Amino acid sequence: MTIKTERYKKGLKVFTTNLGPEAKKYAEGLEKIYPKFARVNMEFPFGDLYSDTKILDAHTRELITIGALTVLGYGLPQLEVHIKAALHCGASREEILETITQMLAYGGFPSATNALLTADKVFKEIDNKPKKKKKS
Amino acid sequence: MTIKTERYKKGLKVFTTNLGPEAKKYAEGLEKIYPKFARVNMEFPFGDLYSDTKILDAHTRELITIGALTVLGYGLPQLEVHIKAALHCGASREEILETITQMLAYGGFPSATNALLTADKVFKEIDNKPKKKKKS
Amino acid sequence: MTIKTERYKKGLKVFTTNLGPEAKKYAEGLEKIYPKFARVNMEFPFGDLYSDTKILDAHTRELITIGALTVLGYGLPQLEVHIKAALHCGASREEILETITQMLAYGGFPSATNALLTADKVFKEIDNKPKKKKKS
Amino acid sequence: MTIKTERYKKGLKVFTTNLGPEAKKYAEGLEKIYPKFARVNMEFPFGDLYSDTKILDAHTRELITIGALTVLGYGLPQLEVHIKAALHCGASREEILETITQMLAYGGFPSATNALLTADKVFKEIDNKPKKKKKS
Amino acid sequence: MTIKTERYKKGLKVFTTNLGPEAKKYAEGLEKIYPKFARVNMEFPFGDLYSDTKILDAHTRELITIGALTVLGYGLPQLEVHIKAALHCGASREEILETITQMLAYGGFPSATNALLTADKVFKEIDNKPKKKKKS
Amino acid sequence: MTIKTERYKKGLKVFTTNLGPEAKKYAEGLEKIYPKFARVNMEFPFGDLYSDTKILDAHTRELITIGALTVLGYGLPQLEVHIKAALHCGASREEILETITQMLAYGGFPSATNALLTADKVFKEIDNKPKKKKKS
Repeated sequence: MTIKTERYKKGLKVFTTNLGPEAKKYAEGLEKIYPKFARVNMEFPFGDLYSDTKILDAHTRELITIGALTVLGYGLPQLEVHIKAALHCGASREEILETITQMLAYGGFPSATNALLTADKVFKEIDNKPKKKKKS
Repeated sequence: MTIKTERYKKGLKVFTTNLGPEAKKYAEGLEKIYPKFARVNMEFPFGDLYSDTKILDAHTRELITIGALTVLGYGLPQLEVHIKAALHCGASREEILETITQMLAYGGFPSATNALLTADKVFKEIDNKPKKKKKS
Repeated sequence: MTIKTERYKKGLKVFTTNLGPEAKKYAEGLEKIYPKFARVNMEFPFGDLYSDTKILDAHTRELITIGALTVLGYGLPQLEVHIKAALHCGASREEILETITQMLAYGGFPSATNALLTADKVFKEIDNKPKKKKKS
Repeated sequence: MTIKTERYKKGLKVFTTNLGPEAKKYAEGLEKIYPKFARVNMEFPFGDLYSDTKILDAHTRELITIGALTVLGYGLPQLEVHIKAALHCGASREEILETITQMLAYGGFPSATNALLTADKVFKEIDNKPKKKKKS
Repeated sequence: MTIKTERYKKGLKVFTTNLGPEAKKYAEGLEKIYPKFARVNMEFPFGDLYSDTKILDAHTRELITIGALTVLGYGLPQLEVHIKAALHCGASREEILETITQMLAYGGFPSATNALLTADKVFKEIDNKPKKKKKS
Repeated sequence: MTIKTERYKKGLKVFTTNLGPEAKKYAEGLEKIYPKFARVNMEFPFGDLYSDTKILDAHTRELITIGALTVLGYGLPQLEVHIKAALHCGASREEILETITQMLAYGGFPSATNALLTADKVFKEIDNKPKKKKKS
């Protein structure tokens, strides 16, 4: 089964635009496990939804997703992905932390605390990443 | 027990700004049932969070809340309130429907379908509301 | 299929003690739909758990259940049953409202608000019920 | 925006096969509210998933969906749809009630009780429907 | 407290039939922590529900449970147990992956992705297990 | 931003009374990540709710919280905190295990099993902690 439909390619491109080079690895990992799952993951949220930036821009979409993943409570690996994507789309750290704090009102402290600690972990990973040396 | 702290007043003012005149009735309804609950409802989400529009503006906050209420699945009365508030804060109907559609990816069809039907109901109520006659 | 095991009878007795005469009607309603479901409902939570008042008394058990039903968000019919049961087991209205308010911290406003309105509805039903006349 | 893609048509056909003539009305209702939502609803679960009966037949798929909707707790309108679809795909009433009863172990009594009452309601609606007279 | 009721023994036997020798260790682990919990775990889902294969066979029951555990989102350790049990009861890997993929429609990507990765992990553990040597 | 409001101080004091010296470290950890979050965490649940022991004593409040965290399913780190707090407020281990077992009826086995294993882990940590030597 080849999953390289036009919508898949479009979705992977949008996912890569939002998240950066990690996107391809993520998609390939799912493809190895179950191609049908990987196909719909690229085609639907990324090919159909995030690709449409006329109604909602990528920055706003990512904050909305962070809010939803916060209140769901069990989606911390996906929250990591979308915190990185939000930063990549121009959101500030403070906007992300404020979105999570707003979710206290809708999901309570347990889910929001876990989300806050996840954001902190992502930010620290970014800060501790050795910068690529410039050619000299 | 009087609940008219400064933060309560500030929260009620912000809630009224976002939602319109319904806000006061909502707050008074809760106050009659349990003042402590009404107090924290005005003080915390509205007095502390929504009042702060420097990091996230009211329009964006309301879309994030609509996303969260969609995936939670059981908060349809609150979703009605925040769909009205989002419109009041300048969100378009299409932005609201797109936010709900995006939530398909995070909570699946049952919660998103119920949210879509709720949005449709709110929009129809607004369209069917007899307009106040102008003085002539 | 007869479902009148000893544990069923014990469970129904405990349920009746906690809730009052409504309990029997509730159990019979389930029995008509699917006896296996009705059997485990009486045998397990009521026959096994609520019957054991040595570790946790009925009053405390009912408050814990009210807290759990509040954060779950979708169990409002069951919440009505357990608010009545809590009152029947000696809990005050204020204890019930305070338990629901505490749940703001664990499930946020949407679920707690719906629970608060449910409690208010139950209390009003009780207040509006015509009292049985005493024989004279 | 026309939503009559090939996958949409395929999905609507599968949905109609599983559910009966109600399917078309359901799809058109969503289309009026937000065509993008209606499109993905037909294209993805029905066009992509339920259409594939080689791995899982429609009967088994519907029971799995009934189980999932039971534990989610907030999808009772969707549960009604899929109880009808399960019957339409050859499931017996007892299989449906047993599936819901099994969910006691995974979601507890509140969600399973609400699902049981929903099944009972659907069965009664079917039983009370006046049968079409045969031509004589 | 001895927990060796007839229903407990029956449940443990069914659990062992479905899962294999791991079942006993699982039950004993719970028994050491709280015998009352272990007792109801064996008596109710395994002794009462899974033991009844007249209405739903073990294979179908396990797929339904995998669907439910997928959408719940927080039951990954239990999902591992039931993926193994499903394989033990004759389900193919593809049926399990298809069940999880179907759940995209009911619980969205975060819960289904975590379930897919869990299935992949279980399959790899099985593939990497050194096979017992045959006597020669 | 300094967060040392009177309510914050009151909340931290109550949190420390209920949990012991770990409370301060927990609050400071949150403060480093996002002071606004830390402030509302101390001010609201601890300063406003747990501080009020006239309606519900700390022991009962902690059991209710353990029940809620059990059924939520995704709040195991918070459950650890509140199991320690419950013990600190005079709850017995058996009361905690019984509360978790009662939650089987409201959230099913997956969430209750994870909570039971969490309680077991906390109890073992306490038992294995080297006792401080007494001066001799």
